[in-house]
Amino acid sequence: MSPEPSATESLAGGILRIDLGALVANWRLLKGKLAKGATCAAVVKADAYGLGMAEVAPALYQAGCRVFFVALAEEAFALRALLPDAEIHVFSGATDASLSELLRHGIIPVLNSLPQIDAATAHAKARGKPVAADVHVDSGMNRLGLEASELAAIASAPARLAGLDLRLVMSHLACADEPAHPLSAQQLAAFKAARARIPAFAAVPASFANSAGIFLGADYHFDLARPGAALYGLKPHNSAPNPMAQVVRLQGKILQVRDVDTPMTVGYGAAHRVTGKARIATVGVGYADGYRQSLTNRGHAYLGDIRVPVVGRVSMDLIALDVSQVPAALAVPGAVVDLIGPHHDADALAGEAQTIGYEILTGLGRRFHRIYVPAKESQPA
Amino acid sequence: MSPEPSATESLAGGILRIDLGALVANWRLLKGKLAKGATCAAVVKADAYGLGMAEVAPALYQAGCRVFFVALAEEAFALRALLPDAEIHVFSGATDASLSELLRHGIIPVLNSLPQIDAATAHAKARGKPVAADVHVDSGMNRLGLEASELAAIASAPARLAGLDLRLVMSHLACADEPAHPLSAQQLAAFKAARARIPAFAAVPASFANSAGIFLGADYHFDLARPGAALYGLKPHNSAPNPMAQVVRLQGKILQVRDVDTPMTVGYGAAHRVTGKARIATVGVGYADGYRQSLTNRGHAYLGDIRVPVVGRVSMDLIALDVSQVPAALAVPGAVVDLIGPHHDADALAGEAQTIGYEILTGLGRRFHRIYVPAKESQPA
Repeated sequence: MSPEPSATESLAGGILRIDLGALVANWRLLKGKLAKGATCAAVVKADAYGLGMAEVAPALYQAGCRVFFVALAEEAFALRALLPDAEIHVFSGATDASLSELLRHGIIPVLNSLPQIDAATAHAKARGKPVAADVHVDSGMNRLGLEASELAAIASAPARLAGLDLRLVMSHLACADEPAHPLSAQQLAAFKAARARIPAFAAVPASFANSAGIFLGADYHFDLARPGAALYGLKPHNSAPNPMAQVVRLQGKILQVRDVDTPMTVGYGAAHRVTGKARIATVGVGYADGYRQSLTNRGHAYLGDIRVPVVGRVSMDLIALDVSQVPAALAVPGAVVDLIGPHHDADALAGEAQTIGYEILTGLGRRFHRIYVPAKESQPA
Repeated sequence: MSPEPSATESLAGGILRIDLGALVANWRLLKGKLAKGATCAAVVKADAYGLGMAEVAPALYQAGCRVFFVALAEEAFALRALLPDAEIHVFSGATDASLSELLRHGIIPVLNSLPQIDAATAHAKARGKPVAADVHVDSGMNRLGLEASELAAIASAPARLAGLDLRLVMSHLACADEPAHPLSAQQLAAFKAARARIPAFAAVPASFANSAGIFLGADYHFDLARPGAALYGLKPHNSAPNPMAQVVRLQGKILQVRDVDTPMTVGYGAAHRVTGKARIATVGVGYADGYRQSLTNRGHAYLGDIRVPVVGRVSMDLIALDVSQVPAALAVPGAVVDLIGPHHDADALAGEAQTIGYEILTGLGRRFHRIYVPAKESQPA
């Protein structure tokens, strides 16, 4: 945090500060919870949950992370360009069109269905060498992954897997953020049953836990965990204080401050009525920046340590804050307010916006001036 | 729409098609509603409402549009690089840091407060030549713009404006999308009164109408209108069918289809329960792409002409659709569904998501394969 803003910082309506040291600390904390020998991967899909894969992935690699997951083939290609030596898995699997391209870049597709498996084994046969791939078993999410009938087909004809160089068998938890939810234990049992039923699945490393799954205990860890949300500081479960370090600070800049001394309405739709004396600050961040319209008359920011409410409707490029409780010398044009910060993390803002922290982070806009705080010298993980 | 998808199209989870011909037709329709001689500008802030300023602004320029508005200085610089000859105005005004940079690029700041005016006149004095600028009068939005006390100060000391080369005096409507709202007429009267009170404001062209304001009638048009939303196909008012051409089509790709024949839950939080027989299609678009989580168990898509509901929670990269009513031959991996399309425009999706079409468009993600349908040969506007 230099005292003098840079030229581009001074032109932006908001400043997004991403602490790569906190990110690395979170990865180490999660890794430390796993059994010795288990791998802690990192999920960097959706541009590393909106925080910038180009900065996040190399910082994690530098800290010792070697295994990464993305959602889409194009994300995998972008990551390969950043990290030539990393192990990269892509959740959405492979279509006929993408499989050769993935293999050419040494990227491992997660095969989610029997047709995807059949396409991969046909490809292996055609080129005369095995295709490295993961297999995703659906244990109760009912979204992607092999379903019961497909597992039965493989169990009765294991040769369906011929030509695959299986790297991981994985599944995905639906409710791990609610530690008491009965579905997690049911999913665990289903995953174990699938591995027990198909010898090829039992013979390769298994991956089950996302961020929340890591906190469900060692039964859920298997050989490789795939945290995403917790790396970025989001709370991994609903039942305890958030153990993760905060990675994101989002500040908006005050453009104008006005004293109101007659009753009037503020903003689009005249959605807020000022009845007495008030000071209203207009800040250069709006829903086009991901500061969601559902925060209209609900969101809060902090000017220093003072909580200030959003008044009126969130506009595309602007919000209005009631800064009546803030000393006049602090609420001035050019001053910054914390929209996400030490007093008010992404999960808290998400609660006000009636969504989840994940959607707040992935929705962060492109107009902020971004500052990456580098991680300190890497120590062996 | 070529029958064979390109390589990048086939890798994406979704395809965003932007019809620049419809955009240009919308601009012409709006221009046609104005009195002869009035200027129809275009608002291209927030990356042209999420649709891509780099494609949108040149298409409008090609059609005859010469005046553009953006929100932030950095947007203005990016637009200047695209359109060296256009007239560019920036709503958020100028800070001390940005004013010289704006002037150097021939960009016109909208001055929103007396301190901004004072800074601009001081700058003019220091460099010995006038500063081209607009003045924004607040007529009842109470967000940005000169307030009553500032207008009084200028009226009693007109020399406060010395050194400004005033280009426009403008104001902004708060409720124009509700034609019956009484605030619009009050704002109109306040805007006229401010111009009548300050001769320098009466002597320059005036701008008042946004998209909705154009539909409020000629009293609201003045010399220059500044449509944004309607250019991009959003409905300009709440009281009639939408007269604008649709600019956006958003399609998601089916990754997997599964037949469900036992009761089960779908997705995160087990938020949807399938009770009978059903077919569920998983599509490679999620809230990280701007398909909002508030569409959980509420949104609808179209497969051809058949309406299909979102079931379960919207995930970061995926949604599940109930395609039980769709012929099995159509609901297959690789097929596309319309998320925004002929049967279901951005406003309709916004209604399901409990937000406004503006927020849907500005929230569109970066992972779609984007296709710009060019406008036909330009005719004189």
